[in-house]
Amino acid sequence: MSTESRERAAVENRAARFLDDLRDWLAIPSIGADPDHHGEVARSALWLADELRMDGWPTVEVWSGDSQGEPCLPAVFACWPSTDPEAPSVLVYGHHDVQPVDPLDAWEHPPFEPTLLGAELHGRGASDDKGQVLMHLLGLQAHLEATGADAPAVTVKLLVEGEEESGSPHIAALLADHADELACDAIVVTGTGMFSRDTPSMCTGMRGMADAEVVFRGAAMDLHSGQFGGAVPNPVTELARMLAALHDGEGRVAIPGFYDDVREPPAAERAAFARLPFDEAAWLSGPAGGSRSLRGETGWSTVERLWVRPTAEVNGVSGGYAGPGHKTIVPAEAVAKVSFRLVPDQQPVPVQRAFAEFVAAHTPEGIQPEVHFTGSGVSPCASDVDHPVTESVRLALQTALGTEVLYAREGGSGPEAVIAEALRAPLAFLGVGLPDDRIHAPNEKVVLPLLHRGAEAAAHLWRLLGERRGEVKGRS
Amino acid sequence: MSTESRERAAVENRAARFLDDLRDWLAIPSIGADPDHHGEVARSALWLADELRMDGWPTVEVWSGDSQGEPCLPAVFACWPSTDPEAPSVLVYGHHDVQPVDPLDAWEHPPFEPTLLGAELHGRGASDDKGQVLMHLLGLQAHLEATGADAPAVTVKLLVEGEEESGSPHIAALLADHADELACDAIVVTGTGMFSRDTPSMCTGMRGMADAEVVFRGAAMDLHSGQFGGAVPNPVTELARMLAALHDGEGRVAIPGFYDDVREPPAAERAAFARLPFDEAAWLSGPAGGSRSLRGETGWSTVERLWVRPTAEVNGVSGGYAGPGHKTIVPAEAVAKVSFRLVPDQQPVPVQRAFAEFVAAHTPEGIQPEVHFTGSGVSPCASDVDHPVTESVRLALQTALGTEVLYAREGGSGPEAVIAEALRAPLAFLGVGLPDDRIHAPNEKVVLPLLHRGAEAAAHLWRLLGERRGEVKGRS
Repeated sequence: MSTESRERAAVENRAARFLDDLRDWLAIPSIGADPDHHGEVARSALWLADELRMDGWPTVEVWSGDSQGEPCLPAVFACWPSTDPEAPSVLVYGHHDVQPVDPLDAWEHPPFEPTLLGAELHGRGASDDKGQVLMHLLGLQAHLEATGADAPAVTVKLLVEGEEESGSPHIAALLADHADELACDAIVVTGTGMFSRDTPSMCTGMRGMADAEVVFRGAAMDLHSGQFGGAVPNPVTELARMLAALHDGEGRVAIPGFYDDVREPPAAERAAFARLPFDEAAWLSGPAGGSRSLRGETGWSTVERLWVRPTAEVNGVSGGYAGPGHKTIVPAEAVAKVSFRLVPDQQPVPVQRAFAEFVAAHTPEGIQPEVHFTGSGVSPCASDVDHPVTESVRLALQTALGTEVLYAREGGSGPEAVIAEALRAPLAFLGVGLPDDRIHAPNEKVVLPLLHRGAEAAAHLWRLLGERRGEVKGRS
Repeated sequence: MSTESRERAAVENRAARFLDDLRDWLAIPSIGADPDHHGEVARSALWLADELRMDGWPTVEVWSGDSQGEPCLPAVFACWPSTDPEAPSVLVYGHHDVQPVDPLDAWEHPPFEPTLLGAELHGRGASDDKGQVLMHLLGLQAHLEATGADAPAVTVKLLVEGEEESGSPHIAALLADHADELACDAIVVTGTGMFSRDTPSMCTGMRGMADAEVVFRGAAMDLHSGQFGGAVPNPVTELARMLAALHDGEGRVAIPGFYDDVREPPAAERAAFARLPFDEAAWLSGPAGGSRSLRGETGWSTVERLWVRPTAEVNGVSGGYAGPGHKTIVPAEAVAKVSFRLVPDQQPVPVQRAFAEFVAAHTPEGIQPEVHFTGSGVSPCASDVDHPVTESVRLALQTALGTEVLYAREGGSGPEAVIAEALRAPLAFLGVGLPDDRIHAPNEKVVLPLLHRGAEAAAHLWRLLGERRGEVKGRS
């Protein structure tokens, strides 16, 4: 039996126990957004710690606070060192908190009573992210069984946080407090998706974000439009002009300097994107909620607009009276919420600064502007597709899935860039989610055979990285 | 004693009774907007009808429904015919319903307990419009006493409606149902204001209005801006572009055809406007609510922008999420409320039509627009300053006030254009309100000596029109 076949057999041998374990874990309603469920988040962490210990991980810890004394929802850390002191270390990142479940009556089966329907397991967290965390535990067991060793070919670390769905407010503190334990040569993120079941792909990056609120103020109160209209500035009109100026005629963001730090995506990625069978009409009528047409930056495909190009979107606007009937006023003020999706190597703070200057330049006499930002934003992140870890993840997935794996990215963002920056390590993504897994929505599910293939890919990955240990260590 | 002196003496002889009467009437809370006060509106109409009968008006009627069987808040009609069958008829238009009084605790004295403070009478309706209606009753009495006649020099008719503050929903029906009784050679509107006490002026017109609601729809639901942003149309952005295109760089409304029917104001009016001591800084910091700068159409003064130039104002806008924090979405839809102030000879319906075409021309692919209008709008109106009735009103006011009376207009609008059109008669405005009378606001007041001068001016007017009866009749 080839090594590859051994890994698959090892996964299949454990499939029944894997399903039982995943059902147990999914039954714990670890909804981080709901304070009433914080006890369940703790129970979920302890469940995972027990599981890791039963699997034989030498180091298992539960972290529930930072060095500033601030409590946080518990994160689980584990480490299984290689016996080779020269072996690289790889950190697997995931999370065990789950999204809320409302509207509850939209679920066909109770969200915390995991239900097997054919090859699909339904339940909150099945895909995002418990299923894909447990997939890595299975992968490491399969790796050990396939290689017949007592320890993995590389040192494998695991960080499974409990606050990802709440925006990971303590991740930076945890990373700083546990810098030595978390030190690694590469990070493997779990939980990302593939283009489709028929066209597997590997995530190579996530956009970052900066958001802003702009307030334009005119008079101290709404004014009668008959008595004052036509002679004083109208904050809604002026705000509309500023928002209309945000993009040029080619759909590019017109903020000076906005593209200065944008790195062109590698040709290999663009070429792989172009081979994805993206059906624009089906996308518009399906996921894009009946959007009536494509729209975006000239010169880029839809998936490129979503994955490798930065954007400015107006998320909301309000001013004056917009309810039933009419109030004939010159509004006193108007508000717009604007957010930017960022791509490497843009950083949120310089984008915030450039936007503030843009607003100032588009504020006419008679309007008092205010610009507020939410924190310091989220940085974008991307894999280097030529890095040995990224190459190994792709090869591992291709071996497990028996077919070519293309590249894709994700339009949204999590704490990945923060983790990569804190640990000064490259990122790779090993995820087997599907676009129709309904994460964050009712009836979340995961396809069990894909979790098995993902576990097999993880087992291949540890072997492959062991074979290239010098390269990985050298690159970190 | 000159005739002029006789009219003043006649007014002054009746000043004490006039104050008592006005207090009685102001004590009736005839708030038309509040159904709980509709009984008081009826009581107010009956009070006025009794007063007219006591004054000797030969015809006094209360109208509280139209020929379609639809009830309306009662209007009072009265007529005092001239004994000369060749005399022209003049209709005085006013209203006896009043604005609501909230916020009640902002009143220094109870709104329906009229309170004399020096020369000012405080109370809801003191200036708008009961004080200025009763002023006309006093004026006719003074005219009769000054001329020693049993009947006025011209036929005087009076229409005091009860729904002006509710937008005069039945005025067209009343005008149609009572066309014969209301037939006249000219209309004198009461209730308008003067530039200031030191610089009396006469209203020569009111802007009309058309309003619209525009909805831009994209997807059927809000979309995640990370997953969809940059690749689908954003209804808020597109709406902002449409609103930004509403005006050109000179502050002119950029809707094709918008100015086609705009009549240049007469040179005599512009010259009079220019002589008004309009203090822009005081206006900005005072009435204009702390507006930080002037803004409007190039080539026109502030008062011209307010009185004789049409406008487009965005009254409100809403779309997506604009509350605390952020929702990173591509909004499903956006709404704007837009209203237009119109000047002669613009008409609301063609303006509505031109705006609908403008919206269609500014709706990009992928956005579904909807445009709604509120009814058929309000037409603008203006006096012909060379008409003998307008000239006579001005001369009457100058005689009563002992100083030159300039021209001014009002930026807002009531049913005047509807009345003028239905009766096919020219409009003149005889009003002695002041900008600081606080109409529609707490602590409404009127300056009693100005009501006396207004009554004297009315008495002069009937005499002057009697002297020019052939001209007036000939022009109708």
